[in-house]
Amino acid sequence: MLKNVDLTKKLDKKEGKKLLDSLDTEISALQRQARSLGIPVMIVIEGWGASGKGTMINRLIQAMDPRGFRVYSIHKATPEEDLHPYMWRFWTKIPGRGRIHIFDRSWYRKVLRDRVDHEMTADQTACGYHDINSFEQMLTVDGILILKFFLHISKKEQKKRFEHLEHSPDTSWKVTKDDWKHHRQYEEYVKVYDEMLENTDTAWAPWCVVEAEDGRYAAAKILTRVAEGLRAQIGKAEAKVAADAGMEEIAARAKNDNLPSAFQIMPLSEVKLDKSCSREEYKKKKEEYQSRLAVLHSALYKKRIPVVLAFEGWDAGGKGGAIKRLTECMDPRGYEVIPTASPNDYEKAHHYLWRFWSRMPKAGHVAIFDRSWYGRVMVERIEGFCSGTEWRRAYQEINQMEAELADFGAVVIKFWMQIDKDEQERRFLARRDNPQKSWKLTGEDWRNREKWDQYETAVNEMIVKTSTARAPWVIVEGNDKYYARIKVLKTVVEALEKRLS
Amino acid sequence: MLKNVDLTKKLDKKEGKKLLDSLDTEISALQRQARSLGIPVMIVIEGWGASGKGTMINRLIQAMDPRGFRVYSIHKATPEEDLHPYMWRFWTKIPGRGRIHIFDRSWYRKVLRDRVDHEMTADQTACGYHDINSFEQMLTVDGILILKFFLHISKKEQKKRFEHLEHSPDTSWKVTKDDWKHHRQYEEYVKVYDEMLENTDTAWAPWCVVEAEDGRYAAAKILTRVAEGLRAQIGKAEAKVAADAGMEEIAARAKNDNLPSAFQIMPLSEVKLDKSCSREEYKKKKEEYQSRLAVLHSALYKKRIPVVLAFEGWDAGGKGGAIKRLTECMDPRGYEVIPTASPNDYEKAHHYLWRFWSRMPKAGHVAIFDRSWYGRVMVERIEGFCSGTEWRRAYQEINQMEAELADFGAVVIKFWMQIDKDEQERRFLARRDNPQKSWKLTGEDWRNREKWDQYETAVNEMIVKTSTARAPWVIVEGNDKYYARIKVLKTVVEALEKRLS
Repeated sequence: MLKNVDLTKKLDKKEGKKLLDSLDTEISALQRQARSLGIPVMIVIEGWGASGKGTMINRLIQAMDPRGFRVYSIHKATPEEDLHPYMWRFWTKIPGRGRIHIFDRSWYRKVLRDRVDHEMTADQTACGYHDINSFEQMLTVDGILILKFFLHISKKEQKKRFEHLEHSPDTSWKVTKDDWKHHRQYEEYVKVYDEMLENTDTAWAPWCVVEAEDGRYAAAKILTRVAEGLRAQIGKAEAKVAADAGMEEIAARAKNDNLPSAFQIMPLSEVKLDKSCSREEYKKKKEEYQSRLAVLHSALYKKRIPVVLAFEGWDAGGKGGAIKRLTECMDPRGYEVIPTASPNDYEKAHHYLWRFWSRMPKAGHVAIFDRSWYGRVMVERIEGFCSGTEWRRAYQEINQMEAELADFGAVVIKFWMQIDKDEQERRFLARRDNPQKSWKLTGEDWRNREKWDQYETAVNEMIVKTSTARAPWVIVEGNDKYYARIKVLKTVVEALEKRLS
Repeated sequence: MLKNVDLTKKLDKKEGKKLLDSLDTEISALQRQARSLGIPVMIVIEGWGASGKGTMINRLIQAMDPRGFRVYSIHKATPEEDLHPYMWRFWTKIPGRGRIHIFDRSWYRKVLRDRVDHEMTADQTACGYHDINSFEQMLTVDGILILKFFLHISKKEQKKRFEHLEHSPDTSWKVTKDDWKHHRQYEEYVKVYDEMLENTDTAWAPWCVVEAEDGRYAAAKILTRVAEGLRAQIGKAEAKVAADAGMEEIAARAKNDNLPSAFQIMPLSEVKLDKSCSREEYKKKKEEYQSRLAVLHSALYKKRIPVVLAFEGWDAGGKGGAIKRLTECMDPRGYEVIPTASPNDYEKAHHYLWRFWSRMPKAGHVAIFDRSWYGRVMVERIEGFCSGTEWRRAYQEINQMEAELADFGAVVIKFWMQIDKDEQERRFLARRDNPQKSWKLTGEDWRNREKWDQYETAVNEMIVKTSTARAPWVIVEGNDKYYARIKVLKTVVEALEKRLS
């Protein structure tokens, strides 16, 4: 997840001040409303050392009536706290009706710093996630609004900030040996944070990852999210549905996807499409990777490792070409290419995952899906073939399915073939004018093209919510077909080599 | 859970035939309706060897149109199945719209037989429960009705049935060495089944435990539950809410508490209230247990073990007297008695568990709750102080809290002080006539007494749903005060001795 975050995001000084001022006014009014409606709020600020947690909390409370909020700093457990179950100190700090409690670090400590320092096992950590999710769920269904922020900065930026703090005698005490130790463990913590975000980004209490290198941008994102969350919760309270609503209804109020696009995480916008590869280089590398793949294919058959490759991408994005270069060198008895069209009536009569489960490869085999279960959160979402509740819960359902495959030992990789809108037009026109390819182009392709922006939003959200450590998305820069095919081959070969070693 | 099941339940032949005949007619009609509405149904039959799973399935399908259902027998995985993730073989067997799939054993194999045979760790088993719950949740929200039955018989009955089968040359092949092996492991399996029931008795797919020693009773209970489930699901489908309903709304359709009382599990009705203890024996035993308790109290302080004792029971059931006999011999610096009254305004402004979390003992201390968090599923349920959704979800919330205490190392015991209605009246009258005790009796006591039957239903359900291996309910036969006090002392002393050893 964190690798998709664009840390160069900035907010112009003048524009930023205007936005922040108006947010202050709004939050101040919303706080009064929330108070009179008796809405309790918990705001959690987690993030890297020196990412600006304290600064952000200060900025946030500027807008608030001090009689209505309280800030808790969570450190290592005190001896008194250690004499109670872990969650005790957070249960005793939950807000009453109408109050706002802000946490500078929080109950996540157990699956973050404590986890690394005490070398907790994967199973202990899994129990930690379970307890946290239960805690947040119980509070959410009881009407508490939980807003969670994770402040993200790069290793380089962290180093710069630590050095800056150390430089001044007024602030040098703020940087401890421990801070530098964590800095050296940055890469390890990226994994730990990513796993935490994956496991606790629930429908009822989603995370908001904040690009925190530019303080103004970070503050604006946090305040926007807080205002948005309060507004939605107030709406629910006024409609008097909160008390008895189902989980999913409650979840619908706390959506990151309501944020303005400037505050969305959009991995696609980061993709550099100018990458290319010469014909000669292509030929050479293709041959090299294909011969390695041929050997790997028989090795994974012998070791009974199943492989699941899913290809998604824009129409004419080059899925077919990339798949062909993979299969050319593989033993046809050991792989299957599964094209996914709209479901037929019999398939529609089942759960949408059923037809994909039925075609999952057995151990030692490779299944290549040309389009996949991700249709649920793209075409089905956009065309209204399923309800909002249905596609929203699909992210977790898909993560669960892929986790079961990975637990079984499968290699699971998802490719997104990215091209820009101009390139798509060029390819459409080329298809139209080539009698041998014109069958590939249908009216639907042109119609989908008109919905480019809607698809872009859906794909960005999909990639953010389903990029997991064990079943990653690989975004393939596809404007240059040679480059794209080599990247797919290389990714598969390296993943298989890693798995077999 | 299983220890609360009364295996002597029977159904009269004539009455049973009449009931079963009418259920056949009803199920047959419901099946047609469900089919035309496109409702998919999964019926799971789990249970002891020779508990009559096959017989029950045969009985169930008598009423059904054979074109609409299919029966799957789940055995050890085939080599083909072993080449796929565990859930693959169940995902591929889910019913399409309008179909009924019946499972003779099921996906629970992993946390039952496989668990014992392969000596899975607690953590592996926890993952198994998670996968099962996710599977059932995904299907339920997609509109599949899941009905799960567990057929229970005693060890003695199982032995009798195995011997009976072995006796006849026609059926002797049915009893294998493996069956006898499992028979010898009966006690171990009780624990395994109990844990499975605890962990997978979800709001969306609750278990129905069937007293299976009398075949007629078992069949009637299963058919009644199936009819009830179908009827509720058809109602939902007709109201067209299913597709977009929240989890809790969906859950509301599949309730065991809609069954007629003859088919409810009622632990209170099993309690033999004629137990008594002479004054002399009482004095002797009290002294003995109290001196042991005094020693234990200081030992658990030294070992930093927290103890949580919750007392619930009928008004005038003897809670206070039992608590007094416990505390008489304990060091006052090491325990606290926490009387629970109706929440004050400040407490009401928080989650209902907050005030109990705040008073949980620190390690090495004893907290004795005179009434407790169980008020949520008794008085609050009956007086309408919380909504149906709220008290229904409280069972899982309470189990989660107690599990966190137990994980931390706490001893958690809950006592239900049981008396009968006549005895309560005698005590009320005695209080009224005794000037020193008359303050104890209020108008509210008389008003609660009028709701005896409602409380009985609530208490039965509470005991069944919150009796867990690590935080058990102990029902105390309370008509004889001496007997009751000794039982409480004995239970506490033995639990602490076990924990300290």
